[in-house]
Amino acid sequence: MIIVMRTDATADDIRSVEQQVRDLGYQPHAIHGEVSTVVAAVGDESVHASLEPLSHIASVDRVFPIQKKYKLISREAHPESTVIKIADGVEIGGNAIHVIAGPCSVESEEMVVQTACAVRDAGATLLRGGAYKPRTSPYSFQGLGQEGLHMLRIAKEESGLPIVTELVKEGDIGVVCEIADVLQIGARNALNYALLEAAADTGKPILLKRGMASTIQEWLLAAEYIAKQGNPNVILCERGIRTFETATRNTLDLAAACVAKLESRLPVLIDPSHGAGRWDLIDPLSRAAVAMGADGLVIEVHPNPETALSDGDQQLPPAAFAELVKGLRPFVGAAGRSLAPQIEAPVR
Amino acid sequence: MIIVMRTDATADDIRSVEQQVRDLGYQPHAIHGEVSTVVAAVGDESVHASLEPLSHIASVDRVFPIQKKYKLISREAHPESTVIKIADGVEIGGNAIHVIAGPCSVESEEMVVQTACAVRDAGATLLRGGAYKPRTSPYSFQGLGQEGLHMLRIAKEESGLPIVTELVKEGDIGVVCEIADVLQIGARNALNYALLEAAADTGKPILLKRGMASTIQEWLLAAEYIAKQGNPNVILCERGIRTFETATRNTLDLAAACVAKLESRLPVLIDPSHGAGRWDLIDPLSRAAVAMGADGLVIEVHPNPETALSDGDQQLPPAAFAELVKGLRPFVGAAGRSLAPQIEAPVR
Amino acid sequence: MIIVMRTDATADDIRSVEQQVRDLGYQPHAIHGEVSTVVAAVGDESVHASLEPLSHIASVDRVFPIQKKYKLISREAHPESTVIKIADGVEIGGNAIHVIAGPCSVESEEMVVQTACAVRDAGATLLRGGAYKPRTSPYSFQGLGQEGLHMLRIAKEESGLPIVTELVKEGDIGVVCEIADVLQIGARNALNYALLEAAADTGKPILLKRGMASTIQEWLLAAEYIAKQGNPNVILCERGIRTFETATRNTLDLAAACVAKLESRLPVLIDPSHGAGRWDLIDPLSRAAVAMGADGLVIEVHPNPETALSDGDQQLPPAAFAELVKGLRPFVGAAGRSLAPQIEAPVR
Amino acid sequence: MIIVMRTDATADDIRSVEQQVRDLGYQPHAIHGEVSTVVAAVGDESVHASLEPLSHIASVDRVFPIQKKYKLISREAHPESTVIKIADGVEIGGNAIHVIAGPCSVESEEMVVQTACAVRDAGATLLRGGAYKPRTSPYSFQGLGQEGLHMLRIAKEESGLPIVTELVKEGDIGVVCEIADVLQIGARNALNYALLEAAADTGKPILLKRGMASTIQEWLLAAEYIAKQGNPNVILCERGIRTFETATRNTLDLAAACVAKLESRLPVLIDPSHGAGRWDLIDPLSRAAVAMGADGLVIEVHPNPETALSDGDQQLPPAAFAELVKGLRPFVGAAGRSLAPQIEAPVR
Repeated sequence: MIIVMRTDATADDIRSVEQQVRDLGYQPHAIHGEVSTVVAAVGDESVHASLEPLSHIASVDRVFPIQKKYKLISREAHPESTVIKIADGVEIGGNAIHVIAGPCSVESEEMVVQTACAVRDAGATLLRGGAYKPRTSPYSFQGLGQEGLHMLRIAKEESGLPIVTELVKEGDIGVVCEIADVLQIGARNALNYALLEAAADTGKPILLKRGMASTIQEWLLAAEYIAKQGNPNVILCERGIRTFETATRNTLDLAAACVAKLESRLPVLIDPSHGAGRWDLIDPLSRAAVAMGADGLVIEVHPNPETALSDGDQQLPPAAFAELVKGLRPFVGAAGRSLAPQIEAPVR
Repeated sequence: MIIVMRTDATADDIRSVEQQVRDLGYQPHAIHGEVSTVVAAVGDESVHASLEPLSHIASVDRVFPIQKKYKLISREAHPESTVIKIADGVEIGGNAIHVIAGPCSVESEEMVVQTACAVRDAGATLLRGGAYKPRTSPYSFQGLGQEGLHMLRIAKEESGLPIVTELVKEGDIGVVCEIADVLQIGARNALNYALLEAAADTGKPILLKRGMASTIQEWLLAAEYIAKQGNPNVILCERGIRTFETATRNTLDLAAACVAKLESRLPVLIDPSHGAGRWDLIDPLSRAAVAMGADGLVIEVHPNPETALSDGDQQLPPAAFAELVKGLRPFVGAAGRSLAPQIEAPVR
Repeated sequence: MIIVMRTDATADDIRSVEQQVRDLGYQPHAIHGEVSTVVAAVGDESVHASLEPLSHIASVDRVFPIQKKYKLISREAHPESTVIKIADGVEIGGNAIHVIAGPCSVESEEMVVQTACAVRDAGATLLRGGAYKPRTSPYSFQGLGQEGLHMLRIAKEESGLPIVTELVKEGDIGVVCEIADVLQIGARNALNYALLEAAADTGKPILLKRGMASTIQEWLLAAEYIAKQGNPNVILCERGIRTFETATRNTLDLAAACVAKLESRLPVLIDPSHGAGRWDLIDPLSRAAVAMGADGLVIEVHPNPETALSDGDQQLPPAAFAELVKGLRPFVGAAGRSLAPQIEAPVR
Repeated sequence: MIIVMRTDATADDIRSVEQQVRDLGYQPHAIHGEVSTVVAAVGDESVHASLEPLSHIASVDRVFPIQKKYKLISREAHPESTVIKIADGVEIGGNAIHVIAGPCSVESEEMVVQTACAVRDAGATLLRGGAYKPRTSPYSFQGLGQEGLHMLRIAKEESGLPIVTELVKEGDIGVVCEIADVLQIGARNALNYALLEAAADTGKPILLKRGMASTIQEWLLAAEYIAKQGNPNVILCERGIRTFETATRNTLDLAAACVAKLESRLPVLIDPSHGAGRWDLIDPLSRAAVAMGADGLVIEVHPNPETALSDGDQQLPPAAFAELVKGLRPFVGAAGRSLAPQIEAPVR
């Protein structure tokens, strides 16, 4: 922690701050600059009290922390990238790039089975689909719940694809875990630490979306919450942040995904569907994501987006999705990676 | 819903959109402008499917909704302001302005009792204090939990002040409701609809903070979630939003509080402690909040902020808080309102 | 400047950084913490090269500056508040609060004279009005230019009010200075340093709006540009920043105005018209501004806002403005200040 | 323009709004919905007065525009992409992708000549370099001015590369145009319309950076200002926007670049140096930009970034730049495009 004294701080002021630093369990080192003095407090910030309250002292100008707070997920401490096994042949974080696709919401058995098989044939290796949908308005369609989970189970059997589905509350963990291979924590719950811990405790891999207003540091610390619970299998997913721009639903922050890969050992996916909120930008942003170094994509696909019960404006029809994956291949190759091998249709 | 056609849309394109509008249960009205055509879709957007997916149609430029989605909390539908009774003589939303004060976290019985009595004597009419603390880092102090709740109960008995405390997960509802007079939903859970519904079902008044990246509309719709559950007693609280400015922890958005009062019938409080994240701005921002028309304030007070286990840089010591309330009185008077009458110390 | 080394930096790495710090003209002081080492570089950052490029060195994690860059306008260096004399009896920055009012654009001699006299009678002490209007679209009304300046001169003679008007380019300085008592630099030119310097050189007081995306530090450094040019008479004006919220045109950042008053010795005004972009919020935000400690207000007034050529949605008619000033008086009193005495109509 | 009436508006209220719409030169069409009435105003918004001031009417809830305001640069009106010739064999906006490279600031003849030749050999086809540098602090290095321009001329002769350099004020146009092949308008002047018009009048191609807080619409309208002046040769450049994230200097908005290409006929470049403000992100973001469909890149290169007088933390040394261009080639190929052919060294 660095404490910057005001330029008019006296020698007594500095001594008094040094004493308080000692009282809080740190060793103070004053450095007398030409313009102002800074006091460096040596000590492990994770075991001692925070020094930030020292900003109350009149002679202190600012206080700022030095130490990064994430450890278990840090690449500095664990240089090797984490590879997370989801199912036989489905490992996220290695050389293979995975495309996760499926409808925003599960709307019927027919639609989800049909979408699952179509996205699998196009190259997707995991099926996404929401049974529990957090919606801005209480009057919007909220998902089919357990009935939707049942449809996802059938889609999994029919398509052979492992399932990614969102968990919105602790009470659903039992039923969701029966069917989900990966638990998704959505952007609205990105800082709902109680839910993160409960999800972590299931031992399932967690797909952790960045919150709409989460800094990279907050996002990584949310992942640290999961890791601290003993579950190292966190997949990060950048899905756009809130900014002043209104031509897109969010602002997809690919640089944040780069930073997340530099700072943490975890795989990082990109969700261009939510990132832009516009179907016509999904293709170019998917290419950009692969070129930037993402470990995979999350793309919303609906058999008939014009009639979707949620997020119709950002879902692709299956044919467009197949085109997208086809167009992605040269970029995957340019990145020195491969698309994960196609999942075979189960034998019946 | 208004559908704006591209300037190069043909008559056939327009007819086709009109048909789709009909198929979704609305009545289309095309208006042929000099530059482009718009199709207005007449129908209740809350009972029909959303038209936003029509943006998939190539000849459509943009689609935007007309109808506001909040009803139960809307001032248009309910012109009279809602007054929420918390305890005998403590009603929020009327002429009296309430100051809610107390420590960020409950740290010990002594500190919370002492703070409670001090803020009561200074004019606060409710005690705030966190037993469950959502913290950005999993290594930071997370609150004393049930032990903290027990200390709050003692503080309530000793001070006579009703209690506002944060609920962070459904599983805590039983123990929290035994002691809380008002359940607080914090900024991180502002869009955690499962928690909002569970909190609403307790029938307790809910203090709903605005999320760090919530638009006013999302904030009001979160309140609508609570009202739809049958609990009309929602107290809104603006606590700053995330912006690019780093000299303050958040950007306190007083205009949003004004809009919330115009658009909804609910009381609106201001939390200058989180809004600025700096103890030296709490006083001027509290005055501004009262002048703007807030129904109350939420202010963090700690007996010794320099040693606080959380948020020490934004808490006031009791003496400074007493000065603040004193300095507030002329502004309360200028606003044609009164400070809520002081709570009397319980007779022992 | 503080240089934080990576946790895996070796003793050699640290020595090498110390050498580079010396080469750039600073004295290095390494502090070996429990987790990582920081190197403090002692030296005046304003006369030596920046150390930020040291972030290129592989063993360096981060580099951050300590020293504040504004000096001439700093309150730390100049504790006394600056009072700026505009005209006889019109001094901004003292105890008296000034209300600057007038139309967004000067549209005709009649409208500007009528508005000037009306706002003066209501209590405004300066007239604002745009002759040169920077507009988002090149097809929108761009102001009447020199003709507008001529109308402002007449309004000044008729009303007795000194004039605040915007300067948008260096080439206009001659004609604008003939009529303006205060030169306004608008939000779009807030970081147009060439214009700031040219405006400073006129010696006129400068009303400097904060840019839509300017941090407080950038805003104060823009003021420092003017002061460095030898013109100490800068009046800061907060007018809202760009955020994700769309219910208001900008987000008025009253906390930033507080910080500007703490950090600088300059007067700070609030512009609630641009800050909210909604006429129905001007009144409550004006009260909040006064309560927070602003030295004055800038409010758009138009004889008939429904037909205004620009910004009609945020201008008040004269009667509403008079009501606003009347309603402001109790808050001015509560703040221990006075409204600047009314300007008398010139004798003819 | 669409005017949404309040739900409690009476038939008289609606008639009165219709009359005002007529008075402003539009034809009103009321559509009576189930919940509220909207009045569509038919007429060309670019020739009639704005209707936004109608929001003053008590029975009006909201007013919003339909019509896009850019015409000359619109792809809807001009489907073909604009190709801009800079010099023999250097055309931006066609199939070939151009990399513009060079130092943030021109610091000496030797450094700029050396950098120019190095970036040309690595594949850059234009040289960037600042002689006039807008800097946040008045005490930072502000560029060498005319001396810097002279050095750029020598670098142009020695390297054969055309020159892109920033114009910061109208008064410099003469000297800058003697040497510049492309005039750059920087982010701080992105809404300085006087400068845009003056730059447009030179007839030179203009590289127009997006402002830190400019919406896509404002950015395109700034381009329209240039086009309206009779200069169709505008090159758009996305360089990151201001958001809450602090781990990067700005948030690079690749989706905005996609939208700019869909909405306008102009070439769009990406500046990952400013976009991220970190040298370690330039490579992945450059690849992403090419994959997304950018027409080129702007990258800062300095012979020795650790000692750069400005922006050292985001400049690459020549060898790293050469590696970057080499690594870019497969992505350029995947995009079905080519890197612009290398400029040959002038024969001496």
